[in-house]
Amino acid sequence: MLDLEDDVVSIAEALVNVESVSHHEKPLADAVECALRRHDHLTVSRFGNTVVARTSAGRGRRVVVAGHLDTVPLNANLPARNDGELLHGLGSCDMKGGVAVALRIAGSCADALSDLTFIFYECEEVESTANGLAKLAEVRPELLRADLAILMEPSNGQVEAGCQGALDFDIKLTGRRAHSARSWQGINAVETAAPVLAKLNSFRARTPVVDGLTYHEGLNAVAIHGGIARNVIPDECHISVNFRFAPDRSEHDAIDFVHNYFEGHDIVIVDSAPAAPPGLTGTARSFVEAVGKPAQPKLGWTDVARFAQLGVPALNFGPGDPLLAHTRDEHVPIAQLRMCENTMREWLTT
Amino acid sequence: MLDLEDDVVSIAEALVNVESVSHHEKPLADAVECALRRHDHLTVSRFGNTVVARTSAGRGRRVVVAGHLDTVPLNANLPARNDGELLHGLGSCDMKGGVAVALRIAGSCADALSDLTFIFYECEEVESTANGLAKLAEVRPELLRADLAILMEPSNGQVEAGCQGALDFDIKLTGRRAHSARSWQGINAVETAAPVLAKLNSFRARTPVVDGLTYHEGLNAVAIHGGIARNVIPDECHISVNFRFAPDRSEHDAIDFVHNYFEGHDIVIVDSAPAAPPGLTGTARSFVEAVGKPAQPKLGWTDVARFAQLGVPALNFGPGDPLLAHTRDEHVPIAQLRMCENTMREWLTT
Repeated sequence: MLDLEDDVVSIAEALVNVESVSHHEKPLADAVECALRRHDHLTVSRFGNTVVARTSAGRGRRVVVAGHLDTVPLNANLPARNDGELLHGLGSCDMKGGVAVALRIAGSCADALSDLTFIFYECEEVESTANGLAKLAEVRPELLRADLAILMEPSNGQVEAGCQGALDFDIKLTGRRAHSARSWQGINAVETAAPVLAKLNSFRARTPVVDGLTYHEGLNAVAIHGGIARNVIPDECHISVNFRFAPDRSEHDAIDFVHNYFEGHDIVIVDSAPAAPPGLTGTARSFVEAVGKPAQPKLGWTDVARFAQLGVPALNFGPGDPLLAHTRDEHVPIAQLRMCENTMREWLTT
Repeated sequence: MLDLEDDVVSIAEALVNVESVSHHEKPLADAVECALRRHDHLTVSRFGNTVVARTSAGRGRRVVVAGHLDTVPLNANLPARNDGELLHGLGSCDMKGGVAVALRIAGSCADALSDLTFIFYECEEVESTANGLAKLAEVRPELLRADLAILMEPSNGQVEAGCQGALDFDIKLTGRRAHSARSWQGINAVETAAPVLAKLNSFRARTPVVDGLTYHEGLNAVAIHGGIARNVIPDECHISVNFRFAPDRSEHDAIDFVHNYFEGHDIVIVDSAPAAPPGLTGTARSFVEAVGKPAQPKLGWTDVARFAQLGVPALNFGPGDPLLAHTRDEHVPIAQLRMCENTMREWLTT
C-alpha cells in the first residue's frame, strides 16, 4: 500500500517495486490513484493509466508537476535495493525517484502558495502516439495549463531547461544490380553511401546560446543497411539519420536544413519532435533561484516540449543522473531525493 | 523415361521437367543413372546424387565432361516450353541444356577417339561443402583425372576458359556507443565506414592478360549493416566485400592484397575459391580449334577451378547465355543445343 505520509525514500522504493514496464502501468497507476484519493485537498481523475490530481485553492498561479510511471524493460534490476546512500533498481533514476518527490508534495501541499496539478502518466518510454501526456494534451489540454510545468525527469537535482528537438529521417540510395563477377555493369548503391557518410561525419555542430543557455546540435547516422547477396552488386542502401537541433530552430526549420544539406538525395522523414526554448522568466526564474544552482540546457528530448507547444513554460528538475537512465545499474542518491523534496516544498510554501 | 537415343532437344526438355532444386536432385539423378546404365560401353557408379559414367576403351587420352543436375529454386518457370526456337524453363540455360548434350554424347560415344568420363553432379548452386564434384574430388579424385575437363556451363556455345577467383571477407568497424543527444561522447562506427567505402569505390580494376585472355577484376562492397536504435550512436558496422581476382593471383596472393589494401582494418575472411588459368594448350587447344571461335575469359567462378587445382586443364563450353542463368525467363536456343552436340561429336570422333 502506497502511503504519501511515508518518507520519500520509502515511497521511491515502493514505486520501484511495482513493475510498470511501458504498456503495463495499471497496477502502479491504481496504487498512485488510490494513495492520492486519500487526500481531501486533491481532486483526482484518471485517463487510461494516467492519473491527474489537482488543488483548487484559488491561488494566483498554477504549477504542473509531472512524471511518467513507466520504465524500460526489466534487466535483472528488481527488486529495489537501498544501500544507505543509493537506492538501486529499475526506474529508480528514470524516474520513480522524481515521481516519489512529486507524490510526497502532492500529499502535503494543502498550504502551498500555488495551485498545483500533478500528472502521473503512462508510456513515455515508447512511441509518442502511446504517450499518456500527449493523449491528455489532446483530450483535456486545459489540465496542462499552468504558469510553469516542472517535469521530474532525472537532472541531478539541477534545473535542465528547454530541450533540443529531434528529427529522424532516412536517406535512400539507389543503384543498379549486377552480378559481382561483372560489377562494372552495375552501380553499387552501398558504395555511393561514402560521400553521404563523409558529409554526416564532417557536420560542424552549432552550439547556439538560447536565453543564456548553450545547446549543442548533432547530426548522426544511427543505422545503415544494404545488400542482397555475396555475388550481387547492391542496388539499394538506406541510411538512418538522427538530427538533434537547438531550440532556435523550429521543426520546419530543421526539415528545411536537412533537405538543403542533403540536396539531391531521396529523404524520407520518419519522425519529428519539436525543441523547447528554456523560457526562464517569471515563475520559472523564481524556481531556478530557489534551486540555487545555474540552470543547464537539456541535451535530449523530454516532454517539456509538449508544454512549450501549449505555451506553458516548462523545465526538467529531478533526482538522479540522466546518464544512468536505461542502464542496468541505474540508481538514485538518497540525498538527492531529500534535497529535491525540500527544495520544492520550500519554493511552494515561501 | 529418359532415353539417350532421343533428340537432344527432347532430352533437354525432359531434364527441365524433372524438378531438381539443390538438395532435391534424387529423382533426376535416378533417371540419369537409369538411362546411362542401358549403354554397355559405360561403367556407371553413383555417389549420393552424383552419377559417374566412364568408357575404358584404352584410348591414348581421357576427357571429362561434367555438368551439375541442380537448379536454383522455382520461379514460376516450369514446365518447359518449346516455342520452336527457344526452350524455356527453369534450368534450361543453367545447365540442363549442357547436361542434355553430355547425355547424348554419353549414349553414343563408343567410337570416340578419347576415353570419356561423364560426371553429373549435385549441389553446385549452394554452399561449396555440399557440391557433388567437390565431394567426389575428395573421396575418388582419380575419377576426375583427365587430359581435359569440359564443363557444360552455359557459355553461348563458345569456349570460356579458366575462371576468376572469389574471395569473400568482412570488414568490422568499431566505435563507441553514446546517446545520440550527446553524440560527441561517442565514436560513430557507421560514419567511419565512409573512407572504407570510398576506397572500395576507387579501386582500379586490373585487367591482366593471362595466356592471351583478358580478365577483369572487381572489389565490391556487397552489403553493409550497422545501427542499434534511433537514439544510439552505433558502435559497430560491418561491410561485406567480394573480391573477384584474375588467374594470375593465387588465393594466398588475393588474401595478401586485401590485407594490404585495407591495412589497419579488422578483416575476417569468410570464403575463398581459387581462380583457374585458361591453360589452352594440348588437348584444350585442339578443342578450341574444333569449336572454331576464339576462346573468351570466364568472368565468374565455376567448377573448372576444382579441376585446375587437381592439375587437369578445364574449360567451360555449353549452350545458353550465362547472363540468363538464375533469371525467371531463362531459356536456351535450340540451334545452340544442336551446335554444341555436333561440335563435341565431331571433335571426339575425328
